[in-house]
Amino acid sequence: MNDKIKQLLSELAQLKSDLYGKDFLLTWENSTDNLKSVMLVAEIMQELHRQKKPFKIFDSGLGIAIFRDNSTRTRFSYASAVNALGLALSELDEVKSQVAHGETVRETAAMISFLTEAIGIRDDMYPGEGHSYMVEVAEAVSESFREGVLAQRPTLVNLQCDLDHPTQSLADLLKLKDYFGGLENLRGKKIAMSWAYSPSYGKPLSVPQGVINLMTRFGMEVVLAHPEGYDLLPETLVSAGDFAHASGGSFRVTHDMKDAFDGADIVYPKSWAPMAVMQERTRLLRAGEKQALKDLEQACLAQNASHMDWECTEAMMALTRNGNALYEHCLPADISGVSCKQGEVAASVFERYRLHTYQEAGFKPFVIASMIFNSKIKEPAAKLSSFYKE
Amino acid sequence: MNDKIKQLLSELAQLKSDLYGKDFLLTWENSTDNLKSVMLVAEIMQELHRQKKPFKIFDSGLGIAIFRDNSTRTRFSYASAVNALGLALSELDEVKSQVAHGETVRETAAMISFLTEAIGIRDDMYPGEGHSYMVEVAEAVSESFREGVLAQRPTLVNLQCDLDHPTQSLADLLKLKDYFGGLENLRGKKIAMSWAYSPSYGKPLSVPQGVINLMTRFGMEVVLAHPEGYDLLPETLVSAGDFAHASGGSFRVTHDMKDAFDGADIVYPKSWAPMAVMQERTRLLRAGEKQALKDLEQACLAQNASHMDWECTEAMMALTRNGNALYEHCLPADISGVSCKQGEVAASVFERYRLHTYQEAGFKPFVIASMIFNSKIKEPAAKLSSFYKE
Amino acid sequence: MNDKIKQLLSELAQLKSDLYGKDFLLTWENSTDNLKSVMLVAEIMQELHRQKKPFKIFDSGLGIAIFRDNSTRTRFSYASAVNALGLALSELDEVKSQVAHGETVRETAAMISFLTEAIGIRDDMYPGEGHSYMVEVAEAVSESFREGVLAQRPTLVNLQCDLDHPTQSLADLLKLKDYFGGLENLRGKKIAMSWAYSPSYGKPLSVPQGVINLMTRFGMEVVLAHPEGYDLLPETLVSAGDFAHASGGSFRVTHDMKDAFDGADIVYPKSWAPMAVMQERTRLLRAGEKQALKDLEQACLAQNASHMDWECTEAMMALTRNGNALYEHCLPADISGVSCKQGEVAASVFERYRLHTYQEAGFKPFVIASMIFNSKIKEPAAKLSSFYKE
Repeated sequence: MNDKIKQLLSELAQLKSDLYGKDFLLTWENSTDNLKSVMLVAEIMQELHRQKKPFKIFDSGLGIAIFRDNSTRTRFSYASAVNALGLALSELDEVKSQVAHGETVRETAAMISFLTEAIGIRDDMYPGEGHSYMVEVAEAVSESFREGVLAQRPTLVNLQCDLDHPTQSLADLLKLKDYFGGLENLRGKKIAMSWAYSPSYGKPLSVPQGVINLMTRFGMEVVLAHPEGYDLLPETLVSAGDFAHASGGSFRVTHDMKDAFDGADIVYPKSWAPMAVMQERTRLLRAGEKQALKDLEQACLAQNASHMDWECTEAMMALTRNGNALYEHCLPADISGVSCKQGEVAASVFERYRLHTYQEAGFKPFVIASMIFNSKIKEPAAKLSSFYKE
Repeated sequence: MNDKIKQLLSELAQLKSDLYGKDFLLTWENSTDNLKSVMLVAEIMQELHRQKKPFKIFDSGLGIAIFRDNSTRTRFSYASAVNALGLALSELDEVKSQVAHGETVRETAAMISFLTEAIGIRDDMYPGEGHSYMVEVAEAVSESFREGVLAQRPTLVNLQCDLDHPTQSLADLLKLKDYFGGLENLRGKKIAMSWAYSPSYGKPLSVPQGVINLMTRFGMEVVLAHPEGYDLLPETLVSAGDFAHASGGSFRVTHDMKDAFDGADIVYPKSWAPMAVMQERTRLLRAGEKQALKDLEQACLAQNASHMDWECTEAMMALTRNGNALYEHCLPADISGVSCKQGEVAASVFERYRLHTYQEAGFKPFVIASMIFNSKIKEPAAKLSSFYKE
Repeated sequence: MNDKIKQLLSELAQLKSDLYGKDFLLTWENSTDNLKSVMLVAEIMQELHRQKKPFKIFDSGLGIAIFRDNSTRTRFSYASAVNALGLALSELDEVKSQVAHGETVRETAAMISFLTEAIGIRDDMYPGEGHSYMVEVAEAVSESFREGVLAQRPTLVNLQCDLDHPTQSLADLLKLKDYFGGLENLRGKKIAMSWAYSPSYGKPLSVPQGVINLMTRFGMEVVLAHPEGYDLLPETLVSAGDFAHASGGSFRVTHDMKDAFDGADIVYPKSWAPMAVMQERTRLLRAGEKQALKDLEQACLAQNASHMDWECTEAMMALTRNGNALYEHCLPADISGVSCKQGEVAASVFERYRLHTYQEAGFKPFVIASMIFNSKIKEPAAKLSSFYKE
């Protein structure tokens, strides 16, 4: 056990977290100590992995993934996380199993959980849907556990919903912690969470909502930038403001990308759909109005196209602190001239930070494993120490 | 090890079962001691699971699932079962792999089995097909094992065929054993295995056929109820009669749901398709006659609709013993006003027994694991005892 | 540990292989000692498996499969191999994850590899594509490992590309080694790698290319036979000639199947598409010319049909040494009167060698496991010995 691990374990042991037995659905439901516990356990697990020391806590059991939207990286992060903990991945394919809302959610949740320890859910496409679905599943497994149908209660992990993307934002934050040398060094740092142009349509709001509600908790100067009409859910702006106030940081919204980038220590330029469009889209999908959906897509793409200057170019980067703010992205980025004609970021900017974004993503498997670990293990520091003795 | 486990282990040790090295395809091919052994091992495994004691018997190896029909609960039950035993699940997707009958079944069975310990198959849609397919796979792996192509012979488990659904019916029976306090208490109990109305089409016959051929072996009074024209396969009626005779129970068929429910201790109201329709459907599917298939579906739905009074309502339940017979179902049920406008069961009835049906389903992973365990382990009681020493 | 194992371990310990830390993409990139090491480790693993001795080398981690073409047997071979080594299989479904060439290959390779130990890839459909893709993935994980993004570098295994099919050809060779009692006994043996008629279209060239470039390395008399117009990639003919020269064997091409079968010790009759057709097909697929693709398919099937006499009949077999050459095939074969009206092999010939072809295929899981093992373990003989002590 090296000094870094000793330090992390000591910090972990001093936290007053209450994650034991809990799901992880939204960062803003959790105390700062809970968030720190998720991060510290993730960092220790990453170090254990580097030292080729296993950190299994299960002899057997399933880790179920429910993906209601396509995903490569989150899927593999979850697969890696449950495997490292000793669980076998099982995917619930909703097309095959014809799951629907209502009675079936409650029943299906019980049916798949008899020997299940964790359930990761991604459901991010429709405002007002994803988080509600997760709460419904959580209540269903709680009932089945309480009533003796299940011998154990599976832990739920939000792998992206309509509100938050906690495994992403905590990976983003871990990258900042690593890059700037500790959480305390983030105090006063300016981060520009900015909308950026993309030739695509219907990207969820959970990443910017998650970022502004997490970074404000650690004393950062958070600036949210987007063109008019690309607002996030109003309550997420209110909570971000509250968090900034409580932590001694700040939070404000601007409609000027340059304003946000000016003197920034970190930039996070990323496209998302206007909330109003997402809501209209949900309504049209439910109503099955195919022509109206196509019209909406065209209108939205046209609206995007009037903001093609919202790109993270070298000129924009030059505005940041010493011209070398850290660039963050949840990946995949829309890279101008590489993955699309014109997109969120200039190719030269992206290439300069490419490996940084890979490292950022590299925290995600450990964040997911940590969320499950924190829910299952009463004394995380003691348990993690024990892996060094084996 | 608690007293309950000691009692179960002692019962198990006294059985003269011959499951070692065998597949589990049909309950009616098996001695009563075999069935008891499957149930006892399943109950002990469930208790081991509650006590968080692993019961792995493999260090590695595959447990293959072949699903020729959609399934959520059986799929996850099988996934849980093979995982608990130490195997990795691998699904044979027949679309991807272009498996067909004939030469290919024999070859594919060998090709997927080089390091395979168990094969679970669900093939329930076509009368005369599912069981034959399983026998074909069984013969193929037997040949390959005998001829030295395989170092071990995978155990086959019937996860539902055209004839029987043994993992379901044994889970149903385990629920009865638990609810009434032992198999001996089932003697003389009346169970109504009844057809019920559903607005769907083409449900297989294996559940009612499995139930009437299993419950008759334990001295129960089994009444099969359905409208005229919804007959089961004739040979399954004959064998059910024989089993009832041998066990001191009874078996009869009625076309009156009330007659079946009258004084019943257990009711099992569930829809199925008329056998003649299923056979005609198979013929038309093979001939590729799409219009005739659509006509058949319409005709069948219309036929169903003339029996909408076959519903498990509160009034029907009032006819049962003390008005509170146990309600069983293999799930998902067609619940009136919940999952369909009108279906198999009234919402209030289903809700009252909902958690019971979840518990019923909860036996299934352990039944599947038990079938594999009984096939692989010569002395099940001794092996199960050893898990307590570890 | 029996004498056979002792002998194999002793041979293994004397090899000068350099597979540690390497991918396995093409047999012709590897020294003969490397090939022998893959075979010896595979044989020892097969024996360990027969003796029910596990040979896990990982506590956890993912083994990823990327299949860009349908496959049953290779898929299950890979699933078995990674499971036996202690890894969990995770499949990258390219439709779901929308992977493409370019930037995305590099990024996706990193994203799926954070806790990944092995990546098996099958990409065999387009000349000039499959091997290049594997090299691209290999370079991507090398960069990520070098730059600290990954804590370990996943080992790549070629599960069939446009050039070679090394897990198949080494399984073919292991069957010969077993059948003829050792590699040294193959010296001077004549093998006919022959085109054969099939009513299908677009079969890849990697099997014949792999076979002629592997068997020539062990002193065999290799004859490649095909109708005019069914040439393999020219460079694979050159290298086969060079290998034959170096090993003291021979290599020649004939357009007469009888010439190839005459006095042969082994025959390998198998269909493949003309290279020119494969190249034109790739061009048309890229250009999206659907009608031209259909025309090409028809032209190719017509071209095949003019060579229906290229069938491995009893009369052809009578030409071989003592009329009983060993028949090899990668499976599934197109069997006349069984899987098609007329195909690569007569039903009576295939049936006589059927179990031999199963055994041939049975080496494949161990070959794959061996490739990963050789890449991960510095001293394979010592590590394998240790499994006997446990």
